[in-house]
Amino acid sequence: MAEQKMVNGVNVTELFNTIDLIKKNPDIAKFKFRATNKWINGTHNRATIKDFYGALKEDNSRKPMVYELDEPPVLLGKNEGSNPVEYLLVALSGCLTTSLVAHASAKGIKIKGVQSRYEGEIDLRGFLGISEDVQVGYQNIRVYFKIDADVSQEQKEEMIKMAQKYSPVFNTITKSVPVSVQLDK
Amino acid sequence: MAEQKMVNGVNVTELFNTIDLIKKNPDIAKFKFRATNKWINGTHNRATIKDFYGALKEDNSRKPMVYELDEPPVLLGKNEGSNPVEYLLVALSGCLTTSLVAHASAKGIKIKGVQSRYEGEIDLRGFLGISEDVQVGYQNIRVYFKIDADVSQEQKEEMIKMAQKYSPVFNTITKSVPVSVQLDK
Repeated sequence: MAEQKMVNGVNVTELFNTIDLIKKNPDIAKFKFRATNKWINGTHNRATIKDFYGALKEDNSRKPMVYELDEPPVLLGKNEGSNPVEYLLVALSGCLTTSLVAHASAKGIKIKGVQSRYEGEIDLRGFLGISEDVQVGYQNIRVYFKIDADVSQEQKEEMIKMAQKYSPVFNTITKSVPVSVQLDK
Repeated sequence: MAEQKMVNGVNVTELFNTIDLIKKNPDIAKFKFRATNKWINGTHNRATIKDFYGALKEDNSRKPMVYELDEPPVLLGKNEGSNPVEYLLVALSGCLTTSLVAHASAKGIKIKGVQSRYEGEIDLRGFLGISEDVQVGYQNIRVYFKIDADVSQEQKEEMIKMAQKYSPVFNTITKSVPVSVQLDK
């Protein structure tokens, strides 16, 4: 068995093996991720993540992961969980971080720590239907990274550029992605 | 004290009062939502949601809500949590559901149940930097709703249209939202 090169907890040997396999058969890279949601009451609902399709097969091996969504009282909820636009920031934070760490690891850059904070502005006149001129979604999101690694400031700047370039959630938010919504027949 | 009209667990009296207040002072509708993230190891990181700004003040009253993010083994992780693109579906699911329920409640439509399922396609050649021609984010997301309510099929179709029109996460994903990423000074 070949020795596995680990950088920052990322198995870089396996990462490069995967890339080689995908170059031979691009279908390996085609993934389908899924969620289900059940309304509970008012602004409270519950999402579940479990199965996905990827690397040419269905994966049903994970236990269900359940997430409560609700609004704070000022938005008519009861704080049963974070609200949907906050979960979007959770998604963005995880994706930029993983993208940063994976691409730095592939380059052999050792990281001691990565922290980041996120702030998104939203004008709820859009959601409430008060004004058609107001954007319904986030108007903008600002992200600040702290990277602890023995590299230059320029290399840290390069790391956050790579994070943005390769992060699926960042690219889903900053570009326009089609979402079809229909009644289940 | 005026009687509070509740529909589907939504305080519709308060909803319309809030709309009236915002019409007088639009700044009440300006919200800032936040997250922080800390890298743990490999593809595992941890996001926290706590404070936000809205209705003219900082709200620091909630307990921290913590979310683990990781990848499944096929994507070099250890299943410590759902992955970032799955959290994006969680966000979308909660937002479409809340938007549907809130707008139906405002119209006085009684709902018995709402369930929905989500599937997003992603080609990881983008994330892995194998091909510049492949979209890095989701290529598309499909959503299917089941609504249990004593209304016509046309009204259910109208409900899912309203959900899309007024959902902040739906509109963040389907439109292009600017995200600035920088090093924390």
